[in-house]
Amino acid sequence: MRFVLAVGSTETATIDGISAAGASPESTFQTPSADAEIVEFGRPVRASTIPVSPTGCPTPAVVTRAVRECVGFSTLVIDAGLAASTAAPTVSVETEPGSDIRESVAVKSAQTVFESGRALAERLPDTDFTIGESIPGGTTTALGVLSALGAPYSVSSSHRQNPIELKREVVAAGLKASGLERGDAAHDPVRALRSMGDPVLSFVSGFTIGALQTGARVRLAGGSQMIAAGALVRHAGFDGPIEIATTPFVVNDDSADVRSAAEELNLDLVVTDPEFDGSNHPAMQRYLEGEAKEGVGMGGALALAAEAGIPMARVRESLETVYHSLLEDSDHGS
Amino acid sequence: MRFVLAVGSTETATIDGISAAGASPESTFQTPSADAEIVEFGRPVRASTIPVSPTGCPTPAVVTRAVRECVGFSTLVIDAGLAASTAAPTVSVETEPGSDIRESVAVKSAQTVFESGRALAERLPDTDFTIGESIPGGTTTALGVLSALGAPYSVSSSHRQNPIELKREVVAAGLKASGLERGDAAHDPVRALRSMGDPVLSFVSGFTIGALQTGARVRLAGGSQMIAAGALVRHAGFDGPIEIATTPFVVNDDSADVRSAAEELNLDLVVTDPEFDGSNHPAMQRYLEGEAKEGVGMGGALALAAEAGIPMARVRESLETVYHSLLEDSDHGS
Repeated sequence: MRFVLAVGSTETATIDGISAAGASPESTFQTPSADAEIVEFGRPVRASTIPVSPTGCPTPAVVTRAVRECVGFSTLVIDAGLAASTAAPTVSVETEPGSDIRESVAVKSAQTVFESGRALAERLPDTDFTIGESIPGGTTTALGVLSALGAPYSVSSSHRQNPIELKREVVAAGLKASGLERGDAAHDPVRALRSMGDPVLSFVSGFTIGALQTGARVRLAGGSQMIAAGALVRHAGFDGPIEIATTPFVVNDDSADVRSAAEELNLDLVVTDPEFDGSNHPAMQRYLEGEAKEGVGMGGALALAAEAGIPMARVRESLETVYHSLLEDSDHGS
Repeated sequence: MRFVLAVGSTETATIDGISAAGASPESTFQTPSADAEIVEFGRPVRASTIPVSPTGCPTPAVVTRAVRECVGFSTLVIDAGLAASTAAPTVSVETEPGSDIRESVAVKSAQTVFESGRALAERLPDTDFTIGESIPGGTTTALGVLSALGAPYSVSSSHRQNPIELKREVVAAGLKASGLERGDAAHDPVRALRSMGDPVLSFVSGFTIGALQTGARVRLAGGSQMIAAGALVRHAGFDGPIEIATTPFVVNDDSADVRSAAEELNLDLVVTDPEFDGSNHPAMQRYLEGEAKEGVGMGGALALAAEAGIPMARVRESLETVYHSLLEDSDHGS
């Protein structure tokens, strides 16, 4: 099993109030670089800060890393439009960060990134992939893509209160700027990505198609963004088996349609509960309160832990250790 | 333990007769990209060919991969001037391939690459590094650097017959083009690297210094090139403990001075014999005949296997499997 983590940025994340994947809209540009480092090394290396939400909720990268400490899976980090340098080793798919989807073109390189993803998956020797992402603003671009495809699903949020009305406004403005009506990009995933998507989603959907074509097992690790990836794959005409592994925090978000969308798109939904309920750990409390919810492949990592027979109590212990060492590190740095 | 593999190119490798790390001088530009893929995935992915010498001896990457199949170490591949794309995830240190050392400047970016290596090692959380390299032409640039430093050691070769006279001529021309006499760059490693080195050696020497400063264990995995790296570190004024782990094929090369140089530079030499002697496997036979000898961290990988208590018979079995699957893959591709 190889854990493929696609990381990148979109200017869409800097729209005030859209993303909680960073302490401020500007700091969201650092988040994917730091997330990759946390998964790879257990802490930020070149990145200067630990990604937290505006209220201090730590990035789901700590959960993915905590599982990795227990399970020890191989990673492959894809630079799909990073805006900041990372010390995590990456494969580049040669793209800039995405533009604000309210511009006429959101991802100039959508076609080449999609094709690179497909070609890479076809050539890798692995037969089992778990695919995660880190791109602040990603649920908004997911809504954009779903709207362009004419797939009428709502999306979740890293905020406790989903700013879904704001997202709808941004998407409406984006469709207008792209000269699209809802559904105009049906069966044309690259058009949907180019007009309304982001580079990470371009890579993930292409990679998924390539992996399906080799007969590999594909597990999309995430919530709304992976629903959008699944929709893109289906609109490209590929109907192979796809799992979507996520957290209860996303599935229980009534402002999003993850469960029904997965069913309609024929994606096998796997929900793994890390059982944070009994804990009074500050990080776990935030997740229970509905912050962050998912990201950096958290749901897929939890599924891997469950599959390997690791008790969730051990994952939680590991999470406390990773979190503690991050805070320590942060104290040293200040 | 983290296995750091620095890969890159220098135009020096295209001088006819210098390097056997490729079927032809031009194909040496593909070798480091393919080597990184073999260590990472067990076979070339984006790279189109398996690196072999002009006579068909397979790259030492297959030995390093064979050990990795047994021991399962973490890798960190550094793009220190790759000339061809690789599907291995890499950390870039922002450099072009090196120029022919017969030009006045061999590595324009020597200072920044050296500093990047140092900064990266200082920030990584690991406490134990094995550092390998793949750069065709690297023994010639090693001789260039040693000459610039005034360290009077001869170097080995990937050829069965070391073209040492050719290397000396190339180095003499390089010193002249750089306006240097032997020893003019003593105690000035960056000057030696910039005038006569390559980007991989610039990274490795900087990284080693950074790692020494954090108190990490440092094992340089290689022969003559790692002697040059050790000399650069000593000339920078750092006298911390450094191991140099290599193969008997390099140490028994009478045209090179690995053992005496290690002693004079206070590098702890560890030689691990993969015991190819009894085998009639074509790849192992080539090594016994003195081809390739070392590279891609082969000697360090063998030391890791020995340290982990893996019998060399198991490493050889693993080597046969890796080699066989490479050939199969190559048949499919043709």
